[in-house]
Amino acid sequence: MKLQLSLDQVELEEALDYIEEIKDLTDIVEVGTPLALKYGRIAVQEIKKKYPQKTLLADYKIIDGGNYEASIAFDAGADIVTVLGLADIATINGTVTAARTFQKKTMVDLIGVGEIAERIQVIETLGVDYVCVHTAMDVQNGSNSPIDALKLAKSIVKNMKVAVAGGIRLENIDEVVRYDPEIVIIGTGILSKPDRYQAALEIVQRFK
Amino acid sequence: MKLQLSLDQVELEEALDYIEEIKDLTDIVEVGTPLALKYGRIAVQEIKKKYPQKTLLADYKIIDGGNYEASIAFDAGADIVTVLGLADIATINGTVTAARTFQKKTMVDLIGVGEIAERIQVIETLGVDYVCVHTAMDVQNGSNSPIDALKLAKSIVKNMKVAVAGGIRLENIDEVVRYDPEIVIIGTGILSKPDRYQAALEIVQRFK
Repeated sequence: MKLQLSLDQVELEEALDYIEEIKDLTDIVEVGTPLALKYGRIAVQEIKKKYPQKTLLADYKIIDGGNYEASIAFDAGADIVTVLGLADIATINGTVTAARTFQKKTMVDLIGVGEIAERIQVIETLGVDYVCVHTAMDVQNGSNSPIDALKLAKSIVKNMKVAVAGGIRLENIDEVVRYDPEIVIIGTGILSKPDRYQAALEIVQRFK
Repeated sequence: MKLQLSLDQVELEEALDYIEEIKDLTDIVEVGTPLALKYGRIAVQEIKKKYPQKTLLADYKIIDGGNYEASIAFDAGADIVTVLGLADIATINGTVTAARTFQKKTMVDLIGVGEIAERIQVIETLGVDYVCVHTAMDVQNGSNSPIDALKLAKSIVKNMKVAVAGGIRLENIDEVVRYDPEIVIIGTGILSKPDRYQAALEIVQRFK
């Protein structure tokens, strides 16, 4: 089980500080969508330059121009790029093509997908490496969590690895761990705490 | 009828050259998604600084964090930001909230939406300024065009203005103009021509 630290609503300098603080516990560093929109490929380049050994995910949430947009991320140093599960198959295929060209990986983000099981079965045939069940930040509340989707995804995926994102924190980590996702994606659940290293440590100590 | 020049698969320097070349014919300058992913907010800032009188659209295709991501665009100088029609209503609402805070505008991009009529009726209630019917680049071919969707959208929208994008060029501009969209979005249809100004001129001469 791997921890992906998502860096979203931050400036690049803060992001670099957070990575440094939590680097011993982090497997994958995520350049979140807002960070990418603020800094462009510089965010990916700077983080990869400073942490070449860390796996870097660029959360571009591609919905068109799959090959072209994925290539921007890979060219800048990303190891994994995200494409939306809502995207046309041609776009997911384009992203996978770019990933193969650069010998990198593709994650499909299921944010907003209604029929998860159906979509996973389609995506499974496309050569995608990771599928991410994801409750959007804008719809997170007490009753909305990605845990049911995680359970469903884990029960049906064949070759893809499963990631989970959206409101994961110490209070619900045991429920998440129970379904054994390959990647647990956390941002606010760590970064909003006064002692970020300690918060991350308490979470990863629950990992299998 | 307005021409929106979309700057997608280009570097910022090229984008600035193209804007300069075609500025007399362009109403709205679009920082396309790949340009935003490459340069971040600098793309918006530089273009707005050089062309403060032009309306600038940031094609962020937001699907989560509506208020936050839209604010990045507006703060950098954008006049309009795009949010996906596939996004949750909470995300579209967040984008509209940011637009109101900054006294700017929201465009919903219907790329990938199956039931366009149904979705337009929902979006119409949210205070969105523009709705864009859009055939994804990755699925454009002879038989796929946004013209049927444009016809449908124009027949049902009440308060929103309609934009159209996806493979529009001189060869199909008359068909597009016939349905009287408020904004015609063109990139490749102009930028791929040897004489870009002439290509844009021939297109806008067909406008109503």
